[in-house]
Amino acid sequence: MTNKEFRAYAHELVDWMADYLDDIERYPVKSSVVPRETIRQLPTVPPQAGEAFEQIFRDFQNIVLPGMTHWQHPSFFAYFPANSSPPSVLAEMLTATLGAQCMSWATSPAATELEERVMDWLRAMIGLPDTFTGVIQDTASTATLSAILSAREHRTGFLINERGFSPEMRFTVYCSSETHSSIEKAVKIAGLGRTHLRKIPVDDQYALVPRALDDAIERDQRRGYTPLCVIATLGTTGSTAIDPLRDIGEICHKHRLWLHVDAAFGGSALILPEFRWMLEGIEHVNSLVFNPHKWLFTNFDCSAFFVRDVATLVQTFEILPEYLKTSESERVNNYRDWGIQLGRRFRALKLWFVIRTYGVEGLQARLREQIGMARSLAQKIQESSDFELLAPSTLSLVCFRYHPVGIDDDTRLNAINSSLMETLNSSGKLYLSHTKLSGRFALRMAIAQTNVQQRHVDNAWEQIVDTARKTPAVP
Amino acid sequence: MTNKEFRAYAHELVDWMADYLDDIERYPVKSSVVPRETIRQLPTVPPQAGEAFEQIFRDFQNIVLPGMTHWQHPSFFAYFPANSSPPSVLAEMLTATLGAQCMSWATSPAATELEERVMDWLRAMIGLPDTFTGVIQDTASTATLSAILSAREHRTGFLINERGFSPEMRFTVYCSSETHSSIEKAVKIAGLGRTHLRKIPVDDQYALVPRALDDAIERDQRRGYTPLCVIATLGTTGSTAIDPLRDIGEICHKHRLWLHVDAAFGGSALILPEFRWMLEGIEHVNSLVFNPHKWLFTNFDCSAFFVRDVATLVQTFEILPEYLKTSESERVNNYRDWGIQLGRRFRALKLWFVIRTYGVEGLQARLREQIGMARSLAQKIQESSDFELLAPSTLSLVCFRYHPVGIDDDTRLNAINSSLMETLNSSGKLYLSHTKLSGRFALRMAIAQTNVQQRHVDNAWEQIVDTARKTPAVP
Repeated sequence: MTNKEFRAYAHELVDWMADYLDDIERYPVKSSVVPRETIRQLPTVPPQAGEAFEQIFRDFQNIVLPGMTHWQHPSFFAYFPANSSPPSVLAEMLTATLGAQCMSWATSPAATELEERVMDWLRAMIGLPDTFTGVIQDTASTATLSAILSAREHRTGFLINERGFSPEMRFTVYCSSETHSSIEKAVKIAGLGRTHLRKIPVDDQYALVPRALDDAIERDQRRGYTPLCVIATLGTTGSTAIDPLRDIGEICHKHRLWLHVDAAFGGSALILPEFRWMLEGIEHVNSLVFNPHKWLFTNFDCSAFFVRDVATLVQTFEILPEYLKTSESERVNNYRDWGIQLGRRFRALKLWFVIRTYGVEGLQARLREQIGMARSLAQKIQESSDFELLAPSTLSLVCFRYHPVGIDDDTRLNAINSSLMETLNSSGKLYLSHTKLSGRFALRMAIAQTNVQQRHVDNAWEQIVDTARKTPAVP
Repeated sequence: MTNKEFRAYAHELVDWMADYLDDIERYPVKSSVVPRETIRQLPTVPPQAGEAFEQIFRDFQNIVLPGMTHWQHPSFFAYFPANSSPPSVLAEMLTATLGAQCMSWATSPAATELEERVMDWLRAMIGLPDTFTGVIQDTASTATLSAILSAREHRTGFLINERGFSPEMRFTVYCSSETHSSIEKAVKIAGLGRTHLRKIPVDDQYALVPRALDDAIERDQRRGYTPLCVIATLGTTGSTAIDPLRDIGEICHKHRLWLHVDAAFGGSALILPEFRWMLEGIEHVNSLVFNPHKWLFTNFDCSAFFVRDVATLVQTFEILPEYLKTSESERVNNYRDWGIQLGRRFRALKLWFVIRTYGVEGLQARLREQIGMARSLAQKIQESSDFELLAPSTLSLVCFRYHPVGIDDDTRLNAINSSLMETLNSSGKLYLSHTKLSGRFALRMAIAQTNVQQRHVDNAWEQIVDTARKTPAVP
């Protein structure tokens, strides 16, 4: 493909892209394809000769598109969003064209320095003290693993990196029973062992109970374990519960544990002064991650990881083979040493485009609007005779279930709500996901998609009510 | 920014992107900015109000662009390339627009099934037996870490995941002294300890010496260690040395070690039948990674990871919290369980676009052309009176140094070549990187950029010769 052809095709794609965004509500949110329906349409062997782009693009539209779930559809309420926005897509176009690999300052000076600056901006925007330093990672899974590894190495004076585990190193890690599954994954990867991850009970708001944490730490100490770190969550995946940072921080401080905060979804709300209370106790926090790719309108992947002690992070990961040595290494950030991967995309550009296009006030306004929609939906549910909230709506997620009068058996209610969700999602009009809260099947409705408006929430609610009431309640 | 504005700006960007690719040779390959030059031009605080896109894009051109090193410049010969190509950029535009998060089949059925299919294509293209199954990872660093973790868990019956290290678990890992730094990083992350990584000596071609590997394994066994896995490299980063897979494989088979192959750069050459000999001994290989984002014209990040035993990989990483359960889980691939990160970009699309646009024959032709250019440059160097090859040019990398008659002290020659490289790179006309081979400073010239042509190699060589001969040889 010549550059001239590229120019023509790219213009054609831009029109398709803008049309797609204009028309996105015409697509079913969740694809209705069945397993193997897409792959059966794809040749089993690669083409020997090159094919015309027209044909490839046609296949994209006819084969791939019907099998896509549309994450940018304003009626996508499932999971947490993976938001995009027009300025973010524009930046991704430039990033792909530059094709820079940003492992070291020397291989991409401006990308490195822009990353430093936008991470300073983000830090200030979410109200983190300037003793924290940020770096972009791909996902919260990776950032949390980096935090746990930093804790492990900090505690052992970098001895596990050097010699592996010694028999006396029996570490324990703490999180709540509502904490994200990536914590368990990280504990396993780091060689700490899943059985040494203590899942601390939560209160009736699904937030970690500090006293239970303190008890667990002391119990482990008595048994000869070395408590290593605690992961607190601002906005759990199940119900966006907010762990009490001040109490947890004081416990960590008392026992000298590393405190990592997983604010993957909730962290974006920290740009609102009225949510800054979530950070009370930040003086005892060692690291924090939140995902602009979730709720700050920036394309996946873009995870903002902040640490208080850059030296520990860098010493945990640093490598310096001859072929990576450059003359200015002492005076610049080489982000390859701030995480797991050596290679890095130019991710700062999209953050820069998004923050500047919206402005801090624009981002604040959009988040407030979405939180407001969630609150008013939560209120409707509370006022309804046959729906009930299953957790407080702390941010912009609403967890609820259909609970028709006369049915009080949780097993039956779970079956009814599971079936209700399948029916709703297969309509293509909206997409919800679920969790279980105290054993109860909860419908999760995250009102956080970039383009969601009141009418989408209203339509969804109307459809949920209608569908639920029309579904026969017999099990 | 409205969709209408997006459409207009995106068209504007496409013209800029196509112009950039047309004019790329007018830019200095390596940016000449000094540390802090870019960041000083960026406001320390984020804008409160939104800014006009015109201004943002102007700043991109005036502030960011001069600080970029141009990886897509055909005279980029440094490191290994991070190649792009027109069809790959087109796919990235669509990927960004769809903004799908591809963690599970249900969240993006077509992305999952397209990934399965293009990985089948790649597997066939590089001549791997169909007992291997592929998955896209972001980088070879991550894939190699996944391989080492799989080896760790497979060996212990998943006990380290479960309970952490026990005192009797004293594992050792083997690679050559020329192996990539990411192996050491992975060994540290996995809790195995850097001192348990044995760096086996290499021969005069910088390939691992099998007998030394066998000796090291037996020595460790006698000392009470449990040899765990070997990492063999097809195309080392220093000099693209090719480790002898058959001999290494037989040693691994004899001692029952996991054999992982790091073919990050060299793997692409396997699409050429004349390089398939590199895979001799594949029957003893457990996992292999290569990077289409290096030498298959596909945007970073896109790393192809193949394993013989999917069940072990999945069991190493699997997590299934309630909020990720979906009804079809048993019948589909949920790639979130095939690696470290939960969240995943839609990376298969760009591979599909690239393979179909070039066709297998088109990719083969391009690689052969580049290998031919490297061979003819290597020959020129061999014929030259004052340059010398420092390693065989096995693929499309040439390692050499300036060696003027009368100077035979390596310390002086290292200083001369280091200074020569700085002078060349600061000219902006070409970009080389370096390594050390047997203590000798080697200039590395990777002839593998998507658009490199004979004239770029000729111009570079001419400039290298002229600059070297003009530089005073006094130390």
